[in-house]
Amino acid sequence: MGFWKSLFSSADAPSATKSMSIALESVEGASDRGSHVYFSTDREIDLYELEELCSAVGWSRRPLRKVKKAIQHSFLVVTMWEQRGTQRRLIGFSRATSDHAFNATIWDVVVHPDFQSQGFGKALMKHIIKKLRSEDISNITLFADPQVVDFYRRLGFMSDPEGIKGMFWYPD
Amino acid sequence: MGFWKSLFSSADAPSATKSMSIALESVEGASDRGSHVYFSTDREIDLYELEELCSAVGWSRRPLRKVKKAIQHSFLVVTMWEQRGTQRRLIGFSRATSDHAFNATIWDVVVHPDFQSQGFGKALMKHIIKKLRSEDISNITLFADPQVVDFYRRLGFMSDPEGIKGMFWYPD
Repeated sequence: MGFWKSLFSSADAPSATKSMSIALESVEGASDRGSHVYFSTDREIDLYELEELCSAVGWSRRPLRKVKKAIQHSFLVVTMWEQRGTQRRLIGFSRATSDHAFNATIWDVVVHPDFQSQGFGKALMKHIIKKLRSEDISNITLFADPQVVDFYRRLGFMSDPEGIKGMFWYPD
Repeated sequence: MGFWKSLFSSADAPSATKSMSIALESVEGASDRGSHVYFSTDREIDLYELEELCSAVGWSRRPLRKVKKAIQHSFLVVTMWEQRGTQRRLIGFSRATSDHAFNATIWDVVVHPDFQSQGFGKALMKHIIKKLRSEDISNITLFADPQVVDFYRRLGFMSDPEGIKGMFWYPD
């Protein structure tokens, strides 16, 4: 995938993103749109912008107070941004809960429809996996909707390994 | 289940358990063994005692440093104890990771073989569910080994609801 080749150092970040320059990591994307795509682990996210992203993929609204709390208490939050000149746009999001030792569970993986089927979701997931592995987390899990099971399988996720079943509790 | 009827207030706790009296909750068990069974959310757990419990059910050893870290960073830790006179014995354990808002995932559910098939595992799980619900967690999940899927199903857990699959990442 040729467009994942260029690097975008934090020193190049325009002023609008300076506050998150520490969180800027290896920036893996420079799309063919005359823009850059980069990842951040900064948690200072505009919740309305996040809500807009989630609405774009058809997710139902959630109380912002709870979304904020969930972000605060996630082990890892990764956002994906398109930078075009001084403008940046939130195009992807994911987060993981964890015990900081053995297990992590990835939640809320979302990529804006304009950026789907172009490798951005895969890049986002690979970034999260790399981060979790670098924290010595050995067991990376998630719960996949039926339509994305194959997407995750191609990334190395197995469903029901050795018969282990993902289960959800529902009140009687 | 008649033996879940008596209460054991923290004031009755012998000196050995005083340090955890704050964490003592409604104590639900008084078994027919001339002893009481109670739950605690205290995280000051003797890691060797926990390791012994896990060994008793055949789990492989894990580095105590990581177990300690995982306990520290779990959202909820529930231990189950048998109290007999001034002696107490760790007979069950479980913990949950969470984002403190939407999702919790239950890990490491263990009940000592001497106490299995007598309702103690069910009571432990019900205690955890109650705790998570009281924290306004709406989505309670877990990954169940094949031999315990039916156990969790009887507690109200559903496997693969609406085709959602539990998935685990494995390195290529």
